[in-house]
Formats: sequence, structure tokens, C-alpha cells
Amino acid sequence: MNTITANTVSTASNAQSNPVLRHHPVSEVMRKTFLNVDATMTAEQALELVRKSDLNHDATSVLFVSSERSNNYRGFVRLSALLRATADTAIGALVEAESPQVKQDVHYEVAARELHRTDIPMLPVTDDENRLVGVLTFDDAMDVLEQEASEDMYWKAGVGDLTHQKDAVRSEKLTSGSIGYPVKVRLMFLMVTLAGGMMVGGVIDHFEGVLEALVALAIFIPLVMDMGGNVGTQSTTIFARGLALGHIDLNRFFRVHVWRELKVGLTMGVLLAVLGGTIAYFWQGAPNGIPMLGVVVGLSLMFSVTTASLLGFLIPWILLKLGVDHAPGADPFITTIKDFSGLAVYFLTAAWLLGISG
Amino acid sequence: MNTITANTVSTASNAQSNPVLRHHPVSEVMRKTFLNVDATMTAEQALELVRKSDLNHDATSVLFVSSERSNNYRGFVRLSALLRATADTAIGALVEAESPQVKQDVHYEVAARELHRTDIPMLPVTDDENRLVGVLTFDDAMDVLEQEASEDMYWKAGVGDLTHQKDAVRSEKLTSGSIGYPVKVRLMFLMVTLAGGMMVGGVIDHFEGVLEALVALAIFIPLVMDMGGNVGTQSTTIFARGLALGHIDLNRFFRVHVWRELKVGLTMGVLLAVLGGTIAYFWQGAPNGIPMLGVVVGLSLMFSVTTASLLGFLIPWILLKLGVDHAPGADPFITTIKDFSGLAVYFLTAAWLLGISG
Repeated sequence: MNTITANTVSTASNAQSNPVLRHHPVSEVMRKTFLNVDATMTAEQALELVRKSDLNHDATSVLFVSSERSNNYRGFVRLSALLRATADTAIGALVEAESPQVKQDVHYEVAARELHRTDIPMLPVTDDENRLVGVLTFDDAMDVLEQEASEDMYWKAGVGDLTHQKDAVRSEKLTSGSIGYPVKVRLMFLMVTLAGGMMVGGVIDHFEGVLEALVALAIFIPLVMDMGGNVGTQSTTIFARGLALGHIDLNRFFRVHVWRELKVGLTMGVLLAVLGGTIAYFWQGAPNGIPMLGVVVGLSLMFSVTTASLLGFLIPWILLKLGVDHAPGADPFITTIKDFSGLAVYFLTAAWLLGISG
Repeated sequence: MNTITANTVSTASNAQSNPVLRHHPVSEVMRKTFLNVDATMTAEQALELVRKSDLNHDATSVLFVSSERSNNYRGFVRLSALLRATADTAIGALVEAESPQVKQDVHYEVAARELHRTDIPMLPVTDDENRLVGVLTFDDAMDVLEQEASEDMYWKAGVGDLTHQKDAVRSEKLTSGSIGYPVKVRLMFLMVTLAGGMMVGGVIDHFEGVLEALVALAIFIPLVMDMGGNVGTQSTTIFARGLALGHIDLNRFFRVHVWRELKVGLTMGVLLAVLGGTIAYFWQGAPNGIPMLGVVVGLSLMFSVTTASLLGFLIPWILLKLGVDHAPGADPFITTIKDFSGLAVYFLTAAWLLGISG
């Protein structure tokens, strides 16, 4: 039997949980309307039960089978299989070989993904004693997956809010009605940006002497910042999808995945450094008679691209280890760290290679 | 009858189409295994047909009904409804009142959303003459929605590729195997960043005289850039969700939505300007004896926040009008425009208020 418990899928559950850290067990969304029949019942009797049942048609497309005495869940039979069986077959003999089910405390997104993985229109939900307590319908599963995808997107874009509202409710409040709600929700995230921007400004403040000696250095501040930012977003996205789809194995995270990302980052860094540095050299020439500006831009690009690649894997991993949702939470940290370190390296190499003391 | 044609849902279809602009009609993913029965058949006969059919159990949970002569699609009956009907009822009389269906040339995501909106496990697909040509199963619909959500995410993060591969295939190629693939795909997008960063650098280059007169101006370059960037991302996300969920009405786009976004942007802009400007003033005081640096920072923040809010609605709208997918394509444009104009305003107000001629 193919049981998923909250325990065995804890990694997937963390990876997919909503950023507010409220646990949403499948029991919150499961339905109680299902047909649970005894394994000893015959196909004929079961069909008669369906005929007389007052459940909705869609609730009777699948019958769930339990042992008569222990009430242990045994498996399911589709209505069409029942119809095709000989009348006196015990229904217990008709249950399908693959019998997916989830425990009631499993996160509802994990349950929805399990339903998606199999092709059953209703996924049985059981309690600790293996008794059937509810079903997750494909329709509700689609809602859950859509909701979680939207949730992640809102947080990544900086318009998440703490009340975990339905996608449609939130979108409506963001697009119509009083402007108080969007302003409040959006400003909450922009405060983080304000703090981050000031901190990064602190780096430039610190190197004001270097900048004063060669003002042309300011020209490449946006390039170093933007390049690191985009590379970091690429890496967090690749990490998040890889983890959700099982392509990233946390047990060999450093040895395999971080090492590979380092190689990718370094390769991209070197190529962008050569290209960006060359353009910088031909554009700004040798300001103040010093021909090293291109080299400074190149080295900084190489450093910030490589760093942002690594941070894009490491920060989500750290947040995951801390039990915080990784995907939407990682971006502000990465922005500040890579801007801070990228610009620090930029001005440090500038001071060094151009022979200026800050 | 509740028919969706490619025509009537063209807005939703554009809004959701994949960025490669290849049209993916539902006929690409529909299945040909379904039971199509004559409306004149009795319930008893239809049940016998199900019993003798060699289709999978999940393909027979719903029966589709067409007129005998014209072969016009009439509606569907769930197997359990058939089972509960009296034996000699004509199946045509049993079809459900709400009868969703889609035309075969509809985008597959639109079809998947229609299946999601209703609760039917198989959505009928018809041709121009209203003949049943296939069904979209809930399982395939879940795949489609998952695939499209991932696709958008990859493009937004700058790791899209032109081959429209399955989510799992792409994720695997990005996380394992040769580093050639990730480097190539990621560099493609980083070239845009390189060009954009250089263009924004051009603004700083242009105002080098102003910067030379007051080097402390460089300190707030990251703040002006980051703030505009985050506000722009918020706006594009709100636009994209609002359009997908029907909260944004393109017929009253300027009068209602752009006007509201302007108010939201201006409100946030003023608040952030006061806050950011005050911090800048207390931090940098009155450099070179000129106390206006805080005012310059404040005015630039106000301008760039308001501009980024508007661009976040306008650029996706323009791309939509041009027939290009709006959501993932808009971000690089917005980044460059808001950085370019934000920094231009920053240096222009600086030159003006600080009395420096560039």
C-alpha cells in the first residue's frame, strides 16, 4: 500500500508550505461525502447501494472499501469496474492494485500532488488507525495547487499578506476598492527594500574617497547590481523547481548541487567579465590615465555573478534548514547580500588596481 | 449550452499563452478514448455498452451523448446517474443541465481552466460542426496548468528556453548533466541585463559633472534603482493575476485601473519619499554646505515609485495589445525604463536643487 504520512514527506512538505508557516493539513479541505463499503459486500449489493444513495453523482464515481470488523481502509473500486464485475464477486477482490492514500495531517498541497501523480478523481484520507475519514476531490486539489502557486508568486513579488486569503479575494482587493489595502501590503515589503537600499548605499559611502578619485566608477554600479540580481533570481528559481520536482537531493547538496552551481556561476562569470570588461574599456578608455577600469568591471562581474549563483542555492537551503519557507523568502536577503558584497569587491579591486587609497 | 470558442475568450487566451507565441490548441492534449452514445439509447442499453466496452475504467466514468442523425454533441451523463435512472429512460433525457464544452482550437490552458471551473472529470472537445472529437481529462488538465505556471516562472526568472519543454525535463537539465545547457539558457537573458546595465550607466555617465560636484549623490543610486524595481514587479504581478482572474477589465483599463494604480503609486511614492528623504538628510546632512540632498532623494523616490507603478500596468498592456505574452516578457523593459528615468530624474533634480550645472 502506498501511504504518504506527514513524516516521510517532510522535505517536500517544507519545500511547498506557505510562507506564513501555518500548517494546512488535508483534513481542512477534504470532503466527508464518500461511499465506504464493507469488503465482504458483493458487486451486486454495492451497485444497489449506489443506486439508493443520495450522494451527488460525482461523489459516487469511486467506492472505498474497508474491512468489516476493523474498519481498516483496504482500497478503492471505480464504479465502472463494479459494473463490469460479476454480480456475486466480493468487492474486496475488486480493489485496484495501486492504492494511493494520505494521512489526514499531511499538508494539503502534498495530498494534491499525490492525487495529481496518480489519476484517481478522489484521493482517500485516513487517520492514524487507517480508517477512512474523508476524500480530497480532484476539483479541490486543483484549487489547492492553484492557490499555492499564486501564494508563492505574491510573496516573491512583494504583495503577500499574512492572512492567507484565497487568490481571487486577494487579487480583487489589490485591483479594486479602497487603495488602503494595496498601499499597506505593498509598503510592508518596500520597507525592506528601503533598508536594503540604504545598507548598500553605506558601501558606496564607505568608498567615497575612491569614487571621488575616479567618478567614472559610478557608471558601472547599476551593471554590477543588476547582473548579480538577475543571476540570483535564476538560481533561486532553479533551486525551488529542482527541489519540488525531486531533482535536488538534499543529502548530497554540497557535494553535487552546490559544486555544480559553482561551476555554472564561474563559467557565466568569466564570460560576462570578459564581455563586460571589454565594453567598459572601450567605452571609458583609460580615465585619469589609468587603463584598469575594464579589468575592475570584469573582476567585479565575475565575483558578483559567482557569488549570486551560490547565494541563490545557499540562502534558500539555510531558510529550509531553519524551517522557514525558502522560495518566496529568499530574494530580499540575496539582493542585499549580493549588492553589498558585489559593490564592496568593485570598490576594493578599484582601489587596489587603480592605486587609490579609499 | 455553455460553449467556449477561441474567439470569445481571446483575452484570457492571450493573457495565459506561453511566451514562445506557439499556439497550443487543446486538440494537442485531448484524448480520443471516450464513450459517445446516441441520445435515443435507453439507460439500460448504455449500461450494457459500458459493461462490454474495453475502455479503461476512468474513461467510462462519464458518457457523452450526441444526436443520432446529425451527430451533434448534446451533453454528458455521469455513470452513477445512468445507474440510478429507470432502465427504459432515453439517455438524451438524462444529460446534465450545465453542459460545458470547448472547441478544439481553444488554447489548452483555457480548456484546463474551464474544466477547473466546472467539476467534470472529462471536458468534451468539439469541432466547428459541434461533433465530439475528444476529451480533456482532469489529470491532463492538472498537467497543463502546472506546466503553464512553471513556464511563466522560468521566463520571469530568466531561465526560459525556446523549446517549450516539459517542466520536469527542463528542471532536470538545469540541475544535472552538462553545464552547457544552463550556461547557454541563462546567458541569453543575462545579455539583456548587460545591455540594460550599460544603458543605465550611460545616464550616470551623462551626469558625471553633477556627480563630480557632489560624490555623495552616488550613495542613493542603489536605493532609487531597487525601489523602482520592486514596485514595478509588484505592479506587473497584480496586473497579471487581475487579468487572469477577471478583475481587470481591459475595456475600462485607463479610466479605472491605470487611474487607481496612479493613486496607489503616488500614495506610496509620497510616503517613501518623506521617509527616505528624511533618512538621507539625517545621514548625509548638508554635504558641501547644501542641505537639499534629502529633498533630491525624496523627489526621485516619489517619481520612480509612481513611474514604476504605472509602467507595471502599461508595459504588460502594450505587449498584450501587440499580441506578445505580457507577464514574463515585461520585466526587462520595466527595469531598464525605470532605472533610466529614475536616475535621470535623480540627477536632474540634483543639478537643479543643488545649483550644479552638469
